[in-house]
Amino acid sequence: MELHGKNIIGAAESVEPAGDGFQAKNPATGASLEPTYHDATQSEVDRAYGLAVAALPEIKKLGREARAKLLDCIAEKLDALGDEWLERAEAETGKPVGGLKFERGRTTNQLRMFAAFVREGSWTGARIEHADSERKPLPKPDTRMLRIAVGPVAVFGASNFPLAFSVPGGDTASALASGCPVIVKAHPAHPGTSEMAGRAIAEAVAECGFPEGTFSLLHGTGHEIGLAMVRHPEARAVAFTGSLAGGRALFDAAAARPSPIPVFAEMGSTNPIFVLPRAAAEYGTAIAKGMRNSVTLGVGQFCTCPGFLVGMESPELDGLRGQLTEYFEGAAEQVMLHSGIRSNFARGVERVAGVEGVSRAGDDLTDAGPGGATVTAVLFSTDAGTFMDSEEIRDEVFGPSTVVVGCGSRDEMFAMASSFEGQLTATIHGTPEDLEEYADLVGILEEKAGRVIVGGFPTGVEVGDAMVHGGPYPATTDSRSTSVGTAAIERFVRPVCYQDFPQSLLPLELQDDNVTRILRLVDGEWSTA
Amino acid sequence: MELHGKNIIGAAESVEPAGDGFQAKNPATGASLEPTYHDATQSEVDRAYGLAVAALPEIKKLGREARAKLLDCIAEKLDALGDEWLERAEAETGKPVGGLKFERGRTTNQLRMFAAFVREGSWTGARIEHADSERKPLPKPDTRMLRIAVGPVAVFGASNFPLAFSVPGGDTASALASGCPVIVKAHPAHPGTSEMAGRAIAEAVAECGFPEGTFSLLHGTGHEIGLAMVRHPEARAVAFTGSLAGGRALFDAAAARPSPIPVFAEMGSTNPIFVLPRAAAEYGTAIAKGMRNSVTLGVGQFCTCPGFLVGMESPELDGLRGQLTEYFEGAAEQVMLHSGIRSNFARGVERVAGVEGVSRAGDDLTDAGPGGATVTAVLFSTDAGTFMDSEEIRDEVFGPSTVVVGCGSRDEMFAMASSFEGQLTATIHGTPEDLEEYADLVGILEEKAGRVIVGGFPTGVEVGDAMVHGGPYPATTDSRSTSVGTAAIERFVRPVCYQDFPQSLLPLELQDDNVTRILRLVDGEWSTA
Repeated sequence: MELHGKNIIGAAESVEPAGDGFQAKNPATGASLEPTYHDATQSEVDRAYGLAVAALPEIKKLGREARAKLLDCIAEKLDALGDEWLERAEAETGKPVGGLKFERGRTTNQLRMFAAFVREGSWTGARIEHADSERKPLPKPDTRMLRIAVGPVAVFGASNFPLAFSVPGGDTASALASGCPVIVKAHPAHPGTSEMAGRAIAEAVAECGFPEGTFSLLHGTGHEIGLAMVRHPEARAVAFTGSLAGGRALFDAAAARPSPIPVFAEMGSTNPIFVLPRAAAEYGTAIAKGMRNSVTLGVGQFCTCPGFLVGMESPELDGLRGQLTEYFEGAAEQVMLHSGIRSNFARGVERVAGVEGVSRAGDDLTDAGPGGATVTAVLFSTDAGTFMDSEEIRDEVFGPSTVVVGCGSRDEMFAMASSFEGQLTATIHGTPEDLEEYADLVGILEEKAGRVIVGGFPTGVEVGDAMVHGGPYPATTDSRSTSVGTAAIERFVRPVCYQDFPQSLLPLELQDDNVTRILRLVDGEWSTA
Repeated sequence: MELHGKNIIGAAESVEPAGDGFQAKNPATGASLEPTYHDATQSEVDRAYGLAVAALPEIKKLGREARAKLLDCIAEKLDALGDEWLERAEAETGKPVGGLKFERGRTTNQLRMFAAFVREGSWTGARIEHADSERKPLPKPDTRMLRIAVGPVAVFGASNFPLAFSVPGGDTASALASGCPVIVKAHPAHPGTSEMAGRAIAEAVAECGFPEGTFSLLHGTGHEIGLAMVRHPEARAVAFTGSLAGGRALFDAAAARPSPIPVFAEMGSTNPIFVLPRAAAEYGTAIAKGMRNSVTLGVGQFCTCPGFLVGMESPELDGLRGQLTEYFEGAAEQVMLHSGIRSNFARGVERVAGVEGVSRAGDDLTDAGPGGATVTAVLFSTDAGTFMDSEEIRDEVFGPSTVVVGCGSRDEMFAMASSFEGQLTATIHGTPEDLEEYADLVGILEEKAGRVIVGGFPTGVEVGDAMVHGGPYPATTDSRSTSVGTAAIERFVRPVCYQDFPQSLLPLELQDDNVTRILRLVDGEWSTA
């Protein structure tokens, strides 16, 4: 595929002059990659929203089955991009094609999962209460509730998953599944990968008979374009995965609108792992290995990368620390997504290393390589008192680093757990006896995190019905939602009550005969009849 | 019951000196009502939150059945207050005891409805995906999702329903149902009614073995106390019913927090009614009568009071207008909730009356009566062009007034419908032929409103599973929610994923044996087994 470097506004390619443009850069080699992309202009943003607004009623009329087909068709089109897509993504992100193959599978599986979920239909939350004209003192009206699409959704592609959390990622899939038109802001670090995905989606939209405004793709390097997307009067919701600063800026802009809209920003997390005493003694080596793998997976650039390992100060924790030190000192060089992320990582490492009471293993970050993005993993060690006294340690360091924290008592471990801010995940390693003795830890951690794990590691987010990839602030701006799994669709719908409607005017899902056999709450009973 | 005039902080009565205090005033007579109440202080707010935080894990342990019993017990305690409660409410609000009896029934029914809904349990959104250790390329973990209480909720009592939307109203009921501790700010116009309800709730909390921090009640006249409740670091959600200015101020304060929290503010609406041509011809008289009743019910102080009747300019609309004029000119004097609301109403009426192209029927608002709160209903008439050109007409006038708007064409009616901001409700009166001819109107209105009604009137909000009392901004600050009906509970929960948990550590709702037989999504199938 020859890349055109243009913004995709519905069915049209568009470039309006906006500055000098930009190119992607290979983080491993430093080479610039053709073609040149341009920041979208306000008028391009306006056109994308204009088409999206026009598309909404048409998408509504097409209905659930047509949307399911669209999602399946997008998955097929992405598969049809072949290895060319993965190679471009490797060149733009430094992620090896092998891992990207896995990520592509996740991306297309996720689209197909949403297709099946759209068909299944229970997420529409259909509820029916029939009329009762005899009721005293007042007759009861016929009321029926359905959750419908909120309207145009602005999606921001993330840098760390150029496929699965980017243009065709979970946010786009779940927003399209709900019936919302989507306007994506491509991440400027992988514009070519984004263009290929965007063209595949636009093709699917046309082929499936959807209105062109169903999908648009805008490029941009600065904050202006993103803020313009959030501030546009026709935007109805925002989905974002990225930094705390970026997510909060979008949240603030959305809250300050004359008509505020929700922002579902997933902003990362430090994902603490609590290792209880018997577990440290019985399978410390397995924990150390798992920890090394989880911290270095994807060069530590996963939102669920474990930034802390918390244990009780003991010979067993010393042993675990020793093994980790060995692993981290022998860790191979890896290439981060781009030089900017590498610089932030280096700054974060220096920040933590500068705290009194923190020791460090692993090589110094001296050689950034030809692309300015090369790093090695870093291990820190400290005690709970130092942790609780120091904000410099607690803030996330995005990249392959982690801190071992020793606690002097169970109470200190509980205090430390309570001191964490909101998290995507929290993990406990414990034997059955440990878990009984530390049972209150689960209660503390479920208040802190969207996902609590026993005995595993937080990286590797299962994409399914029961996943929560979310959590209290600052992990996200909306703890009542998840950005991974089928429940992600709930972000983009709102309930409407239809009172005393004739059957013919009701949405299909609320008509008495329930032809698509979705689960509904009818006069207090759940039924698919 | 002798009123003590004190803030209720958990199990304790508390008055810290904060200014001169205030008394309720009878809006019909102007008489001040004993005792004197005092604005809560910051330290009282802090104590209420401190107790609420301590209560949360205990409430969690008590479980769903205990919460259901608490809600039932609160309903009993409120019933036991007897007519004394209604008489105090009448004295404080001018609402007649007859109507308040009905409102009390709604309040206690609503508590019992939530008790049953808590027991039923499907709202916990339990989902289970079992592990598959054989899956390739990676084994599948065991993941289970449950929606749990978000934490302490700040509830603001509304002035217009001193029982059903106040201290023991839907917000308190749904927040307690979800497992959240509740801190209520009493509306200063009916502090005695609030105290009686608050003491009944605190009694039920104690009797049912709940921790005292489950419920606190604070009084206050100024904005400071409300803002302090929203800004408190331990607040997790806010529920409010009241004015746009008040709701937006709380929303802005919550969004500006270091850790933002959701605000569910229901801020009213103008609830347009569209009368299609054949309906105007066939049953114009019934529409005029229904409109008169709906506009004057509760002295027009319902959030769902219809502020506009929109029809096609025609002899039939003239007839309808004529009948309405007759009704409104003969309307009896009524007493509003307090003199402040009456002043706002009078200002709103003057604002609309001052617009060129608007005519008016009904008496001038000269005599405010001894309590400064007496009014008569007001009818305006104008055309669609004037409506669309004038913000002065479009903004809500809270009280018994409505505007008849004549349209020159179907397109003009659609344009007018599209020009409305977010609404709680929108209503269409039409014959089957009308509804066919104006089918797109439904599509326009479902984008504007939380509830769309065919052939009825918006006042009289059915409390049930399928109700949506919500809608796009400025009707509410969160269109994805409802503040009436069982779905209101969803505002106060967030999902948590439990990964690879041993059975004994899982919440009851997620354990394999499902002893309470709640509906769950298990490996993609809905089941109560």
